[in-house]
Amino acid sequence: MQFTGLMDTLPETVPFVGPEALERTRGRLFKARIGANENVFGPSPKAIEAMQKTVSEGWQYGDPENHNLRHAIADFYHIKPSNVMVGEGIDGLLGYLVRMVIEPGKKVVTSLGAYPTFNYHVVGYGGDLITVPYVNDREDPQSLVEMAHKVKPTLVYLANPDNPMGTWSSGQEIAAMLDELPKETLLVLDEAYIEFAPSEAVLTLNVDDPRVVRFRTFSKAYGMAGMRVGYALGEERVISAFNRVRNHFGMCRVSQAGALTSLNDQENLIQVVKMVGDARDRIADIATTNGLHSLPSGANFVAIDAGRDGDFARILLSELVNRDIFVRMPFAVPQDRCIRISAGTKTDLDYLEEVFPRALETSNHIYSEKN
Amino acid sequence: MQFTGLMDTLPETVPFVGPEALERTRGRLFKARIGANENVFGPSPKAIEAMQKTVSEGWQYGDPENHNLRHAIADFYHIKPSNVMVGEGIDGLLGYLVRMVIEPGKKVVTSLGAYPTFNYHVVGYGGDLITVPYVNDREDPQSLVEMAHKVKPTLVYLANPDNPMGTWSSGQEIAAMLDELPKETLLVLDEAYIEFAPSEAVLTLNVDDPRVVRFRTFSKAYGMAGMRVGYALGEERVISAFNRVRNHFGMCRVSQAGALTSLNDQENLIQVVKMVGDARDRIADIATTNGLHSLPSGANFVAIDAGRDGDFARILLSELVNRDIFVRMPFAVPQDRCIRISAGTKTDLDYLEEVFPRALETSNHIYSEKN
Repeated sequence: MQFTGLMDTLPETVPFVGPEALERTRGRLFKARIGANENVFGPSPKAIEAMQKTVSEGWQYGDPENHNLRHAIADFYHIKPSNVMVGEGIDGLLGYLVRMVIEPGKKVVTSLGAYPTFNYHVVGYGGDLITVPYVNDREDPQSLVEMAHKVKPTLVYLANPDNPMGTWSSGQEIAAMLDELPKETLLVLDEAYIEFAPSEAVLTLNVDDPRVVRFRTFSKAYGMAGMRVGYALGEERVISAFNRVRNHFGMCRVSQAGALTSLNDQENLIQVVKMVGDARDRIADIATTNGLHSLPSGANFVAIDAGRDGDFARILLSELVNRDIFVRMPFAVPQDRCIRISAGTKTDLDYLEEVFPRALETSNHIYSEKN
Repeated sequence: MQFTGLMDTLPETVPFVGPEALERTRGRLFKARIGANENVFGPSPKAIEAMQKTVSEGWQYGDPENHNLRHAIADFYHIKPSNVMVGEGIDGLLGYLVRMVIEPGKKVVTSLGAYPTFNYHVVGYGGDLITVPYVNDREDPQSLVEMAHKVKPTLVYLANPDNPMGTWSSGQEIAAMLDELPKETLLVLDEAYIEFAPSEAVLTLNVDDPRVVRFRTFSKAYGMAGMRVGYALGEERVISAFNRVRNHFGMCRVSQAGALTSLNDQENLIQVVKMVGDARDRIADIATTNGLHSLPSGANFVAIDAGRDGDFARILLSELVNRDIFVRMPFAVPQDRCIRISAGTKTDLDYLEEVFPRALETSNHIYSEKN
């Protein structure tokens, strides 16, 4: 049996090494799991109850049409269910979208250092990935538009807010970007973190706009990353096309129930967003106390500028990991001068505050010996 | 934005309409949900407990390496973890495998009337699907081999036991089939129902055999269809290649915990298999009592031969559905003379027994009026 020609070009890869794998390698558990932008405040208590109740129905396939959840999302946004597609997290949905439009010869524009899993899908379907640099630590709409005019890509990717930096564009900037994109280009607007962002970051919702498909999730603000529920909002032509390629029975029934209940518990969401905001402030304070600068964030994490180059940030990351704090960092220059810390519980951040000075001191020491 | 050329050829489809969709159309719930080969006896009580406990950890992504589950499966079969891939149900894993090897121009051989979701994946990646008929209501290894020699396909699909008929081949027949397949052809052996089958149906496990990849699941005997956990067993070259295309963070964390606990509760599995066997016997008895024949089944469902043609079976199906019993039926001639009834609880089958005679009588009446 032979693999396809395309498969032969693909590496075996994990876009991110999971904290469990690191724990296995280290032979020691993390004390603070604040590296994967998970939401430590967890799912809504009502959603937890609904999911626990649904577990005993786990023998039943989930509704392949995601009817109740899709209708609830539509009601929530005052749009039609035909403008909503539910899928196995944004990762799963991005994979479907890329499959729908990308084949060898097709081009995709994104920012160097933006979401690697999107890139994984593009490469996986044989697309050509063209990147533009961040500008001022931000995925830059203008740079993306300019490159789009050069290469006429099928897709342009923008995460708003951005991961890993937490920066954002305003809804107005994105609206302007849409007006300027070549007509053959679709904007993939990844809004995984949008619930944490200031309201000015939100592009006005117009699901009938054929120039953009938006992706949102229950993984972040709703605290259900491990349950795998995301959704796409867009014009009916694109939304219904997911039905040609998606894994119709792919949704976990328990997750469907949890997402539905979460969505109906907006009170909890508001509280969680507040707690995340407080945690962000505290991470920024810890940075300041240690003489470092941090970036304003519209997401559930904060990029701390470690103040030197990528080598230094990698040492600092490693020193934090050695002290049982799971964190990650950007991989592109010059964003890799930062480490990225997800909003943690009080216990997580107490511990971070405690160990950060020593981790920084050791890092300075190691770095000066090397340089 | 344009779809790929391949996408333009694909229909929007749901391989199976879910019972929830039927309930919405009917405006009435089913009294017996025995149509999707779900396992009404549910997950192991220990797995339910484990999953309920894990729900509050739902904010954490599942381990992308599925380390614990993969190692437990490997231990269970006395094989290496590198011969095991865990994924989002057999449906998800079949999609990945097809993506790895099928592109336009590649051929796939299966039986006419066998698992439609596999076909959906093949067509979805541009493969040419070539079918051979069932022989004696069985997916026929010899016919598959003969066609394979004619068309030299990349994949040959065999479900053992078969769905929708419940029939099976012996492990020896499949071993002989492997010896006879063209060397460029990989056997996709779908063993979703294998735990319900007589031991003679099991092909001896040799995961280093490059001629076959086997697919098993927690959806059927382990009663976790809605949780989406399946696994592939095969040689390292194929198993590790899943890492080039799979959705690494696609597994539900709660499902991972449930599958692990289920696997460790073989006592419960044995009980469930016994209960399913009793339910199969009872379905066969109901058929006999009503003057009908049923097929021996190695799965968790029974095909009842309604005794006439497809039109008659479709009427009978409809009469059962009208009486709030969710059942399905084969779609290919002449297997479509049967209706397929999944093993139900005592309550389900009491109700089936009660309404079956009237449903059959009405069907006879409608059929004679039409013919």
